[in-house]
Amino acid sequence: MSATVTPVAYEDASDEVRAVYDDIMSSRNIDFVPNVWRTLASHPPTLARVWYGLEEIMAPGALDARTKEMIAVAVSATNGCEYCIRSHTRQARGHGMTEEMYGELMAVIGMFNQTNKLIEGYQVEVDDFLKEI
Amino acid sequence: MSATVTPVAYEDASDEVRAVYDDIMSSRNIDFVPNVWRTLASHPPTLARVWYGLEEIMAPGALDARTKEMIAVAVSATNGCEYCIRSHTRQARGHGMTEEMYGELMAVIGMFNQTNKLIEGYQVEVDDFLKEI
Amino acid sequence: MSATVTPVAYEDASDEVRAVYDDIMSSRNIDFVPNVWRTLASHPPTLARVWYGLEEIMAPGALDARTKEMIAVAVSATNGCEYCIRSHTRQARGHGMTEEMYGELMAVIGMFNQTNKLIEGYQVEVDDFLKEI
Amino acid sequence: MSATVTPVAYEDASDEVRAVYDDIMSSRNIDFVPNVWRTLASHPPTLARVWYGLEEIMAPGALDARTKEMIAVAVSATNGCEYCIRSHTRQARGHGMTEEMYGELMAVIGMFNQTNKLIEGYQVEVDDFLKEI
Amino acid sequence: MSATVTPVAYEDASDEVRAVYDDIMSSRNIDFVPNVWRTLASHPPTLARVWYGLEEIMAPGALDARTKEMIAVAVSATNGCEYCIRSHTRQARGHGMTEEMYGELMAVIGMFNQTNKLIEGYQVEVDDFLKEI
Amino acid sequence: MSATVTPVAYEDASDEVRAVYDDIMSSRNIDFVPNVWRTLASHPPTLARVWYGLEEIMAPGALDARTKEMIAVAVSATNGCEYCIRSHTRQARGHGMTEEMYGELMAVIGMFNQTNKLIEGYQVEVDDFLKEI
Repeated sequence: MSATVTPVAYEDASDEVRAVYDDIMSSRNIDFVPNVWRTLASHPPTLARVWYGLEEIMAPGALDARTKEMIAVAVSATNGCEYCIRSHTRQARGHGMTEEMYGELMAVIGMFNQTNKLIEGYQVEVDDFLKEI
Repeated sequence: MSATVTPVAYEDASDEVRAVYDDIMSSRNIDFVPNVWRTLASHPPTLARVWYGLEEIMAPGALDARTKEMIAVAVSATNGCEYCIRSHTRQARGHGMTEEMYGELMAVIGMFNQTNKLIEGYQVEVDDFLKEI
Repeated sequence: MSATVTPVAYEDASDEVRAVYDDIMSSRNIDFVPNVWRTLASHPPTLARVWYGLEEIMAPGALDARTKEMIAVAVSATNGCEYCIRSHTRQARGHGMTEEMYGELMAVIGMFNQTNKLIEGYQVEVDDFLKEI
Repeated sequence: MSATVTPVAYEDASDEVRAVYDDIMSSRNIDFVPNVWRTLASHPPTLARVWYGLEEIMAPGALDARTKEMIAVAVSATNGCEYCIRSHTRQARGHGMTEEMYGELMAVIGMFNQTNKLIEGYQVEVDDFLKEI
Repeated sequence: MSATVTPVAYEDASDEVRAVYDDIMSSRNIDFVPNVWRTLASHPPTLARVWYGLEEIMAPGALDARTKEMIAVAVSATNGCEYCIRSHTRQARGHGMTEEMYGELMAVIGMFNQTNKLIEGYQVEVDDFLKEI
Repeated sequence: MSATVTPVAYEDASDEVRAVYDDIMSSRNIDFVPNVWRTLASHPPTLARVWYGLEEIMAPGALDARTKEMIAVAVSATNGCEYCIRSHTRQARGHGMTEEMYGELMAVIGMFNQTNKLIEGYQVEVDDFLKEI
């Protein structure tokens, strides 16, 4: 099945879009543009805003790149987004996530999706010590 | 507003429930039982299963406790569970999450909730390199 | 905090809305109109469509009213809707849900929110025996 | 992979179901019945309730059909429902949604999924001016 | 497309994992291990914790197995998890869910996903009689 | 209950943050800074990225400001984010959304949350005409 828009090939891209594509390929050290970016390029302001925003956010800072990718896996698994899960799992591994780390990450994701719903379902009252944190 | 069940006070608890309460207080180094556990105690098998499962999962392993609590924040924010967000944010700080780490954590959570929905909305096709990871 | 619209009081309601209000009160055997219906009455076609649809769906059929209300709790807890959780939990109890049933209901809700996210997160492949069911 | 029920073919349908099918085909100006309706027909009261409810809601009123289909895209992308995304995107285009409108629609959907989760994650307090709206 | 980990075949499994596999096959009366369990086996503590927890929860108690599987369908449909929907729908049928029951189950799931979002969207105020339930 | 961080008051803000605050107040024509922005200011790069991104996205283009705010309501109601629902509902009204428009908007949101979950629950097969759109 196709995407809802035609992905933009490098050779058909405007200069503005090509500049983002070039940055993606050099930053990721790959020689092709993944579908997500070719699809977002159907609306160039979205491509630029999302890519440059993502590049800013994912740069190592107080948290390292591996931790950030694992957090992205947690968000994507909770939302059930297949492309996102595959992409971030792969990138987390590329940044050194071992299979043991991955197993623990998934166990944490599963557990707190469970407790989130138990706590909502029972309408647990917020403890006083949690009201001002 | 009250929870949907009456939380179980320590003095009213069965021996089975008290054993869990004692383990919670000693493991967390607190002298009271937070509402979530007093509420789950309305169904003792759930209290025991969830607490002991959580204890197993949150023990430092390939991932440290701080990383695990930050992942719990990511799940809870994505699900919008107030009690859970407050509790895990507090615990992540207790395990050394600085405000700079927290700011980066939240930025990552926000960004990938955005891209998850863009990718779903556009029905981005899975790249070949993501099909077998 | 108030709702986003002014709930419609019985005395201010049109004949069309009053007819629905009367049906709600007699069907539920109560002498007031709960906030949900007074709020939906801000758009009378929505009030009528939702109420009569709900009445059709919740009538005992192949499933009894208690089972239907417990399913409503499962949906509402998974969505984290406070009003809905409170309302359906109360109605399930009114239809004979015991505290033991409720404890089991919540345990099932918690467990499958966990496994749903593990299965998504790991991108478990659909078994052949599940492809044609 | 098949649906969880056998879709009902026109020639196998009861008179009640055929009446809905005829209305769908004439209202949409198509000569076949899309899978969603053939699947809902496995429970005829659901088919009738959903189709006639949808027809009422989607009729042009204070909002035009294109705006309503774009709102349907926003809901479906947020929920990640593939069939729904494809169907409503196609219908919005049929009602004149241009590619520029679509790009802006998706940008808005992405942005507010981001801010929704930031606001939940930070537990932003409701401003006084938002308490009574 | 493959899962994000290599499922563990029976012949490659550790004794610990095999013990769980044997329990799954005898408890379900099948002669193979479904993909979900072979995938979770990539992290043996998760396999054991989830399987034994699930076995405890799904044992007939105050609620029968069919009702529990229907609740699992409600959770899975609300979350949009394909594997989960297929698996629990099949199991509910195995426990005697008729097509009429299934039609009613789905109607209830659809209706309350609708009302949950209407109630959130309108920010319906919690009635006094729902504050203490 | 407080937010998870201390909102940043104008008088305590850095020059960088004040520049964003000034832009917010002049762009919105208000003389105070709403809580969402004072909270995001706890991590200045997030404040700047989100505010300037939002300003770009919400500027009238192929879609007008009112339509964009209604789409924001659809996303926020589907996600159940109280602050977001209140804020965008108020802004949509400020851009001329009538109560009749609002009623129709909410009806559409409710309906498609229902059909999204029916379609997922039944695992409706994608029609051929929807595969390439």
